[in-house]
Amino acid sequence: MDLQAVRDSLEKAALDILPTTTLAALPAKFYDNFIIKGIQIDHIEPGRVICSMRVPPRLLNNGNFLHGGATASLVDIIGSSAFLSAGCPTSGVSMEINISYLDAVYANEEIEIEAKVLRAGKAVGVVAVELRKKQTGKIIAQGRHTKYLAVSSKL
Amino acid sequence: MDLQAVRDSLEKAALDILPTTTLAALPAKFYDNFIIKGIQIDHIEPGRVICSMRVPPRLLNNGNFLHGGATASLVDIIGSSAFLSAGCPTSGVSMEINISYLDAVYANEEIEIEAKVLRAGKAVGVVAVELRKKQTGKIIAQGRHTKYLAVSSKL
Amino acid sequence: MDLQAVRDSLEKAALDILPTTTLAALPAKFYDNFIIKGIQIDHIEPGRVICSMRVPPRLLNNGNFLHGGATASLVDIIGSSAFLSAGCPTSGVSMEINISYLDAVYANEEIEIEAKVLRAGKAVGVVAVELRKKQTGKIIAQGRHTKYLAVSSKL
Amino acid sequence: MDLQAVRDSLEKAALDILPTTTLAALPAKFYDNFIIKGIQIDHIEPGRVICSMRVPPRLLNNGNFLHGGATASLVDIIGSSAFLSAGCPTSGVSMEINISYLDAVYANEEIEIEAKVLRAGKAVGVVAVELRKKQTGKIIAQGRHTKYLAVSSKL
Repeated sequence: MDLQAVRDSLEKAALDILPTTTLAALPAKFYDNFIIKGIQIDHIEPGRVICSMRVPPRLLNNGNFLHGGATASLVDIIGSSAFLSAGCPTSGVSMEINISYLDAVYANEEIEIEAKVLRAGKAVGVVAVELRKKQTGKIIAQGRHTKYLAVSSKL
Repeated sequence: MDLQAVRDSLEKAALDILPTTTLAALPAKFYDNFIIKGIQIDHIEPGRVICSMRVPPRLLNNGNFLHGGATASLVDIIGSSAFLSAGCPTSGVSMEINISYLDAVYANEEIEIEAKVLRAGKAVGVVAVELRKKQTGKIIAQGRHTKYLAVSSKL
Repeated sequence: MDLQAVRDSLEKAALDILPTTTLAALPAKFYDNFIIKGIQIDHIEPGRVICSMRVPPRLLNNGNFLHGGATASLVDIIGSSAFLSAGCPTSGVSMEINISYLDAVYANEEIEIEAKVLRAGKAVGVVAVELRKKQTGKIIAQGRHTKYLAVSSKL
Repeated sequence: MDLQAVRDSLEKAALDILPTTTLAALPAKFYDNFIIKGIQIDHIEPGRVICSMRVPPRLLNNGNFLHGGATASLVDIIGSSAFLSAGCPTSGVSMEINISYLDAVYANEEIEIEAKVLRAGKAVGVVAVELRKKQTGKIIAQGRHTKYLAVSSKL
């Protein structure tokens, strides 16, 4: 996938209009849209993607800061796009994910997400992802995502 | 929180009706609803929660199986409820999460999620969470979630 | 490797005599010996190994309890042997390791280490490893180890 | 601990002479010595330590490259020293460790290890540790280590 296509796949994730009126009727592949709608790409080069978004209310937890599961989903989705930016034919399937949560971030704060491919082998790739507060650079979370890239083969 | 209250907090997560017509207008604290709507508790005892759900289309990835970020969100949310079932005054804030993805699960397959508290100290707790196919017992994912439980104090 | 050979590879890890008089002259492949000398296999079946050892003074940290690095090394070594017990042609190369430390264990306390293969595919395998106090069953640490098993191929 | 004391604690880890002739008789707290003997500090500042060493034969695995358990031990030990360099009163006790193994490194190759504190709160700290080949900068492993720093309190 060329860099423009990777950019488009993230930025044009979804129409903002909800396609149905019930949770049960939400269609397949809606998940990425739900997580990243509103994101913009600030920088993209082979193996490295930097993007930013304002934390939307829908991604908050009961403490009113960014949900740990939403953070994990961002690590997954933006990390996967970094493999595509590196020229991998697919973004692979998830094998491992790990995240350290370092600080809370609240609704409408602007965050920056940087994904950097550490390794992209024929079979396995690893990407490091960091979430930071855009204004201060303070780290919100740091994680790594390991993917199996030879998806036609068997794990 | 007593066991019935923990059960209710998971099962009665949401009305199925979407409260708005745009993603941007979805309200705060909608995230848990989005992930766990449809879940039912099969067993609950202090420190251990087992629940099940049919994989809904909204939680699929582009490969049409359960999204890695949705799995991580389930580990987060069901793991947190296990701390409440153990009598912790709060479910704390996330410090670390890690997940190994072992198998794919598709729309409408029934999964079982078991969360078991490994440690619930005054400051820090750790819970192990496993997702299995309900019919076969085959493991889909295994993770651990570490939380800071003394939330009034400073990390 | 048959089960007796896996057993022997762990139990007969080393003569107890140090082969040289300086750290610098210690030979290649001494590491496993250093970690597991004294271990005994309590149970072995395909994909599952349970062994026990008394915590030797050489594996303590400055707080006089089992060193986090020694625990990680045990997760690595005993986890790897579980792949061999499962009939994998090699124990592969390490891709990921993660450990939650849950309790301290002191010199001469007896510990039990259980390694259980969660998945052993053609390319990738995952094993869960738990360290417990043998007398009480209290969990000391829980980890997972992911290995690339198709070692002749390229990662 | 001041920076010079942190430096000394790593570089002067041990006499090279083995203090006994059997593994069983090796004394308590020998572990750090075994792992880091030969290391030198290239740079130290509050919250950040960079050191280097030639991979000694004693830390190899059966494939003749740096043992995964030795890598984990280096992440543990050098990571802990970074908390001391940041002015933490103790280096705390281990809560979590995770490592991605990215490349093999062989005997006598020179490696560089960088530990960088991501967070050092009153209760909990997180440090990122990276191992690289010194000549090429190629990443060998990347990990994080989470420690409980309020060690007089109860976890």
